[in-house]
Amino acid sequence: MSENKQAVKSIEWRDDHVRIIDQTFLPSRTVYCDIRDIGQMWDAIKKLKVRGAPAIGIAAAYAFYLGIRDIRDISFAGFNIEAERIAEYLASSRPTAVNLKWALDRILMTIYALREKPIEEIKAKVLEVAQTIHQEDIRTCRQIGLNGQELIPKKANILTHCNTGGLATGQYGTALSMIFHAHEEGKNIHVWVDETRPLLQGARLTAWELSQAEIPFKLVIDSASGHLMKSGMVDLIVVGTDRVAANGDTANKIGTYNLSVLAKAHNIPFYVALPLSTIDLSLSHGDLIPIEERDSAEVTQFGNARVAPPKTATFNPAFDVTPAENITAFITEKGIVRPPFTENLKKLFE
Amino acid sequence: MSENKQAVKSIEWRDDHVRIIDQTFLPSRTVYCDIRDIGQMWDAIKKLKVRGAPAIGIAAAYAFYLGIRDIRDISFAGFNIEAERIAEYLASSRPTAVNLKWALDRILMTIYALREKPIEEIKAKVLEVAQTIHQEDIRTCRQIGLNGQELIPKKANILTHCNTGGLATGQYGTALSMIFHAHEEGKNIHVWVDETRPLLQGARLTAWELSQAEIPFKLVIDSASGHLMKSGMVDLIVVGTDRVAANGDTANKIGTYNLSVLAKAHNIPFYVALPLSTIDLSLSHGDLIPIEERDSAEVTQFGNARVAPPKTATFNPAFDVTPAENITAFITEKGIVRPPFTENLKKLFE
Repeated sequence: MSENKQAVKSIEWRDDHVRIIDQTFLPSRTVYCDIRDIGQMWDAIKKLKVRGAPAIGIAAAYAFYLGIRDIRDISFAGFNIEAERIAEYLASSRPTAVNLKWALDRILMTIYALREKPIEEIKAKVLEVAQTIHQEDIRTCRQIGLNGQELIPKKANILTHCNTGGLATGQYGTALSMIFHAHEEGKNIHVWVDETRPLLQGARLTAWELSQAEIPFKLVIDSASGHLMKSGMVDLIVVGTDRVAANGDTANKIGTYNLSVLAKAHNIPFYVALPLSTIDLSLSHGDLIPIEERDSAEVTQFGNARVAPPKTATFNPAFDVTPAENITAFITEKGIVRPPFTENLKKLFE
Repeated sequence: MSENKQAVKSIEWRDDHVRIIDQTFLPSRTVYCDIRDIGQMWDAIKKLKVRGAPAIGIAAAYAFYLGIRDIRDISFAGFNIEAERIAEYLASSRPTAVNLKWALDRILMTIYALREKPIEEIKAKVLEVAQTIHQEDIRTCRQIGLNGQELIPKKANILTHCNTGGLATGQYGTALSMIFHAHEEGKNIHVWVDETRPLLQGARLTAWELSQAEIPFKLVIDSASGHLMKSGMVDLIVVGTDRVAANGDTANKIGTYNLSVLAKAHNIPFYVALPLSTIDLSLSHGDLIPIEERDSAEVTQFGNARVAPPKTATFNPAFDVTPAENITAFITEKGIVRPPFTENLKKLFE
């Protein structure tokens, strides 16, 4: 893929700090934000300056290093207690995305494995692991795109929800990586971009990434999807995910479940693209996935403008769970996974 | 019903002009707008200052009178040509709502029936017919509410889309009239209000009407509906409509079709409330209903703030069509209509 057009880098390690694109300013302004301590990163994740399950994993890994960097004159036992405290703190920023927990666990295991080594050496190794997680994610996303683009016909109208591109990952993305790679292959594709209320990640971020890549798209409100499908204007749906249970039940941005039910009713393939780090084999099914509820103001306000009467109560779950039976296939860096999912997802880890 | 709480009057004839609530300012300000000529009303309908299928019919009837009021020194033939020109002009403001056409046709028929009478007498009669349409709509909406509230259990979570209350009709509303009357009956109801993108009639108008009436509700984004239904949090869905074909296919605000598919998948009753004037027996099925496409800026901008990148293309249909088979029953002023709809809708007019 040509670097200049499609290679948005939402996160970057710069010698002694992390630089992120503050996504809350997109698409009107591209604002970079330098993060130098763990509290700043917690806040950036919570406020969605950095977002997308894989990108959050990378951000948390770097934040872990920022958190332990300045611990001095301490025994391994003391250091390890601090590390566990830091992992718990970072995990509390967003409950649904499992990549966050996955990255933190990986670092905790590294630390424990190095328990005989000097603290300074462990610290250096933690930064190295964070950078490895980051580089692996870029390779993984590229491979997801290459594997998944094969599912996209030569001419296709593709519907997608939320943002799953370079902004949500180390680079390329998950569902959007399939779209980028299909476009790169010269396929004649057109993308329906769900605006994705309440925070409009589709309108603000996916539309921005697709226009950067010069891929044809049209923006639609989320509830136009049924009309599009009924009118024969959608050939396939691709989405990302924040956590997949062992049986294939899939948590993703609120509204994904609606799309899956509509896709089934119209016999339209429904694909979920993800790195293996998003699969949580410890949960047998989707009802066990914690669903983050977010602030009312996301629904009742728009920027600083109120859209609902004063004191309006809301219910604002950030995610919903799509049952495995509504999913045609998962696209991972290790290939395409078809039903039965309980069996075939498990095989990926053997 | 207590007049002060639930009796929003969105439109009123005042001696020589029409006064409407300009709904584009709600809920932050209640702004009244005095309309003194037909061009002003065309604009008010087009820009959704007055909206809702029944309210548009009433507004167009008064506008018809404003349009013919000043025609002088003319033969009946000349007057009738003018009248037909006016009807065509008003009909062009919104193509989907059939009540508009229904009101205009009714006035055209009145004019023709009085062709032997002096022009001034015909004019007076046209105003009278407009006022009758208005009064009839208020009675009709009340009766829809009384008939429909019987379908609402003693304790119920009701989901609704767009705005179908006093603001959309002469008074009380259609789907909301059922809710107002169930509340009046002392039923323990709670309403899920779909915000209804792109123009947020749910967040701005339905939330406002329900809070005026002190009926418990929560505002949700449109794509939370699947999660709510799957979680057992919705007992029934009630919506209004802009046009119903002879077979029961129903045009309503974009997103209604999605709700109907989800309702079917979850075995949740899906009701459509409407006055008989919304039924268009001249169309055999829903594919023949013209669907209005509206401006891109409704999706790409929010107030004056851009939410999508420059030059973003959109597809912005204002309505979708729900097939008859997804509808549990229609609630009209003449009672509840169940399948087979082709047969039973026709009977209403016998």
